[in-house]
Amino acid sequence: MALVNHRFQLTSRPVGLVKRSDFTYSEAPVADPAEGEVTVKVRYLSLDPAMRGWMNEGKSYVPPVGLGETMRALGIGEVIASKDAKFQVGDFVTGLFGVQEYATLPVKGLQKVDPKAAHLPVYLSVLGMTGLTAYFGLLDVGQAKAGDTVVVSGAAGATGMVVGQIAKIKGCRAVGIAGGAEKCDYLVKELGFDAAIDYKNQDVKAGLKVHAPDGINVYFDNVGGDILDAALSRLARNARVVVCGAISQYNSSEGMKGPANYLSLLVNRARMEGFVVFDYAARYGEAGRELAGWVAAGKLKSREQIVKGLDTFPESLLKLFRGENTGKLVLEV
Amino acid sequence: MALVNHRFQLTSRPVGLVKRSDFTYSEAPVADPAEGEVTVKVRYLSLDPAMRGWMNEGKSYVPPVGLGETMRALGIGEVIASKDAKFQVGDFVTGLFGVQEYATLPVKGLQKVDPKAAHLPVYLSVLGMTGLTAYFGLLDVGQAKAGDTVVVSGAAGATGMVVGQIAKIKGCRAVGIAGGAEKCDYLVKELGFDAAIDYKNQDVKAGLKVHAPDGINVYFDNVGGDILDAALSRLARNARVVVCGAISQYNSSEGMKGPANYLSLLVNRARMEGFVVFDYAARYGEAGRELAGWVAAGKLKSREQIVKGLDTFPESLLKLFRGENTGKLVLEV
Repeated sequence: MALVNHRFQLTSRPVGLVKRSDFTYSEAPVADPAEGEVTVKVRYLSLDPAMRGWMNEGKSYVPPVGLGETMRALGIGEVIASKDAKFQVGDFVTGLFGVQEYATLPVKGLQKVDPKAAHLPVYLSVLGMTGLTAYFGLLDVGQAKAGDTVVVSGAAGATGMVVGQIAKIKGCRAVGIAGGAEKCDYLVKELGFDAAIDYKNQDVKAGLKVHAPDGINVYFDNVGGDILDAALSRLARNARVVVCGAISQYNSSEGMKGPANYLSLLVNRARMEGFVVFDYAARYGEAGRELAGWVAAGKLKSREQIVKGLDTFPESLLKLFRGENTGKLVLEV
Repeated sequence: MALVNHRFQLTSRPVGLVKRSDFTYSEAPVADPAEGEVTVKVRYLSLDPAMRGWMNEGKSYVPPVGLGETMRALGIGEVIASKDAKFQVGDFVTGLFGVQEYATLPVKGLQKVDPKAAHLPVYLSVLGMTGLTAYFGLLDVGQAKAGDTVVVSGAAGATGMVVGQIAKIKGCRAVGIAGGAEKCDYLVKELGFDAAIDYKNQDVKAGLKVHAPDGINVYFDNVGGDILDAALSRLARNARVVVCGAISQYNSSEGMKGPANYLSLLVNRARMEGFVVFDYAARYGEAGRELAGWVAAGKLKSREQIVKGLDTFPESLLKLFRGENTGKLVLEV
């Protein structure tokens, strides 16, 4: 193959917000697949808050991206060369392709998807890890049941909007916390949330008092910081706090802010629990079918915000931390 | 009756550490019991970190002590007058008598105890709420199982020393965190803890690395603050953090310090859960029999530190917050 690949290698560990200078943008010939490998032309990359954590040194739920390595990213693309009988040229697949145009990699972990059944970016969103994260986080970790009041932060983000919609499907009251009137309107008017609190222009604690008058049964947290503290102050007895992320804290260079109101867990006999969606791999099939069914029935809406051009990666990623996205942020390569 | 009662009424809400001037020490005739009431001569009062929380205004798991009310306290005493057929003069009972010499109160909530089966203060300690708190917190909330590494803070305090001993009885590895070499020696040499970390003279994180090399499965927290953060940094996969108290934070006038390392819950798929022992009232009998059996078998040791004189109450209570007690702090009236 005479194809040329462009990629972003992580070459220094960011301090605070990611900068273009933390990466090296380089070009190299596309490698041919070895036995058991395929080469994928990457079409879309998933931009996720978790990527910021992967850039830090130290133990986490996955190893950090090594210096000099291609920045890790989930993506969707088309097989253009295959040395594995299970994958044919022309197949569309999702996998950890990295921030690059072409990925030559072993087939383990690749999932085939049907490009006719849904727009490709949806497989990175509601029908991908994002949807699965919302599903297992809300239903397994959060144990949401009909009648519960479910509050989700980062509610207009990729995971948050799915959490609120699944809550509604399951007969819960869904309250979203998001930044700006436009996002809040979208949650209530388009996605059917019962209420939304605009943390940029409203007092979150006061909003929770109004919209979760009997307390919060499940709080699904994507943001950490002051919003987590506000939610803790309004827990119902036996509440479940699902720790999915803490986007407000990932870029702090002063260290994390812990939830000062955590003794609300004691007062309310509540629990706060973290999870990693990978642990549910054995049940992806079951959950994926349920999510796809809801999408097909019009009960679960997907929304992707597409940004274009691999070379915009560092700046595009920052949109997440500036709250500039509504729905799933996807990079079209 | 011509008896005179002395009591401590809470007359102002303490800021920071409790002061004598937050109370009014007053005297009044002892009231005669009405129908369904008894009068108890209080012999011992339980001094508990939770008392500090009861003095604060605002919603908690019990209402605050009202200004002008007798300061709330658990105690043990002897019935000296009875207008209830279930209780006879000469019976020994535990109950919420308050910080006073005589309590005239309805019999609901009183428990008879056998003064011959154990030294009276033990009914406020291992055979009382303290033992029950350790029992349900470790076994129900913490789900401690044989082979687990259990770490407990405030380990030489009333609840902590029971937690570590029950952990050993159940086949766990027990590691205590306490202040000072003497307390640490006591935990290991007298109570059979596997290890103890002296937070006043040792680095807790480094100590946990040595003594919980495979991580912490159950962390039973009585203290909050930096020690909670250190423990969070050493959790094993699927760990349980039991939030029993936060004695390091109760007297803070700058607000609580939240656990900055709480995202360890996510990385380790762990949970942090609060509880209130009163919720387990239906199972007190079962647990009490098991605790008494362990005491009788010599597997569970009790230790009380007795301070004398009702009038020393404000200063005696401070011993808890200064870490001056080993075992259960009890006020002999």
